[in-house]
Amino acid sequence: MSSGTLYLLPVTLGDDVISKALPPDVAEIARRLEIFVVENEKTARRFLGAVKPQKPVRELTLLTLDEHTTEKELPDLLAPLLQGHDVGLVSEAGCPGIADPGAQLVALAHRRGIRVAPLVGPSSILLALMASGLEGQRFSFLGYLPAEKAARVQKLRDIEQDSRKRRETQIFIETPYRNQHLLEDILATCHAETRLCVACNVSLNDEFILTQRIAEWKQTPLPDLHKKPAVFLLLA
Amino acid sequence: MSSGTLYLLPVTLGDDVISKALPPDVAEIARRLEIFVVENEKTARRFLGAVKPQKPVRELTLLTLDEHTTEKELPDLLAPLLQGHDVGLVSEAGCPGIADPGAQLVALAHRRGIRVAPLVGPSSILLALMASGLEGQRFSFLGYLPAEKAARVQKLRDIEQDSRKRRETQIFIETPYRNQHLLEDILATCHAETRLCVACNVSLNDEFILTQRIAEWKQTPLPDLHKKPAVFLLLA
Repeated sequence: MSSGTLYLLPVTLGDDVISKALPPDVAEIARRLEIFVVENEKTARRFLGAVKPQKPVRELTLLTLDEHTTEKELPDLLAPLLQGHDVGLVSEAGCPGIADPGAQLVALAHRRGIRVAPLVGPSSILLALMASGLEGQRFSFLGYLPAEKAARVQKLRDIEQDSRKRRETQIFIETPYRNQHLLEDILATCHAETRLCVACNVSLNDEFILTQRIAEWKQTPLPDLHKKPAVFLLLA
Repeated sequence: MSSGTLYLLPVTLGDDVISKALPPDVAEIARRLEIFVVENEKTARRFLGAVKPQKPVRELTLLTLDEHTTEKELPDLLAPLLQGHDVGLVSEAGCPGIADPGAQLVALAHRRGIRVAPLVGPSSILLALMASGLEGQRFSFLGYLPAEKAARVQKLRDIEQDSRKRRETQIFIETPYRNQHLLEDILATCHAETRLCVACNVSLNDEFILTQRIAEWKQTPLPDLHKKPAVFLLLA
């Protein structure tokens, strides 16, 4: 028996509509799948409901892969694939395997000879980089910055220095309820000439994307980023 | 008069179909636009033909922005936007502003207060990273490696060391006719335990994506990458 395909299925970035986020062929694959490995069951059910699967959402099989999943549990998540079923890997928002725990499962699938098929869909990191107008020939994604203030400020200094040295855009994110603090720290720490893009609620109706130098940001009323997903991009 | 919107319009990664690459709402925007800033006129016309625009392709206005465009010429490209027209920015393949000269125009649009709207579509870099199973919480895109062999080998050593130090995936590309040489240099230069993903013809029917350790690559018949677009991803 040949094994199934692990489809890497991007999901919407919030309450945006499917027709804005997924190509028709991708939505069609999502509709026919019956087994999913998901980062967050609640958001996955809401997304799948919007996709309108062939089977009722409550009859779909959802297995969880999140930051609490141990390496020992991974083989169980691959079992349906080895039994010949196709499986969809679904992140909490955006693309699986990017800034989420999904990559571990993909790595194991490669080792077991399971076909991995990446599908087109939204990534707030990529959309933010496109829209930033910052250097797109060289860039680094750093994930989350340190939660503790002194460590975060030091990290921002390192980020600015690395960006200048390597002439590359540095991209990072923060837990949404700490966004406002991060923005204030960036403005207080970075050089007046450094360019900063803030991309908030990307792809939603109240999308906010603005690139300015630090000196300009200091003269602008700050956007309200509290509890909204945001991406920060910096080029020194 | 208010200015138009600069739509960042991703295009297919080759001869793949529109229904696999673009969400319906994005294809709809592409169909109604009449002015485009394009990296390569020939591939842009082929893509727009496949999208089936409302106006015949030969009647669309195509302005070129490529590596030969000077900073002095950029304002001319923004002129239609300032006159109130919407404009689509189109790369040679994938997403505008990523690994292409489009970011300069986006940066100028921000400075002139023109609305920039990034649209969802395919990026071979992002699809390759998703499918690699390598570290997706931290990654760097480096663009093209040096063309000269000795410099390229030294750069590969630096890339491997950076990946180990920062625990991040390093992503790079090469001019398609040099892919095979690059792959050979990677196998000759990098450590046996280093993981390498080669993603070739991503999203096309003969898509090839494989992640293995260098030692395993050395025991595998090498894929034919000659003149095919490929993305290389390395994690030491």
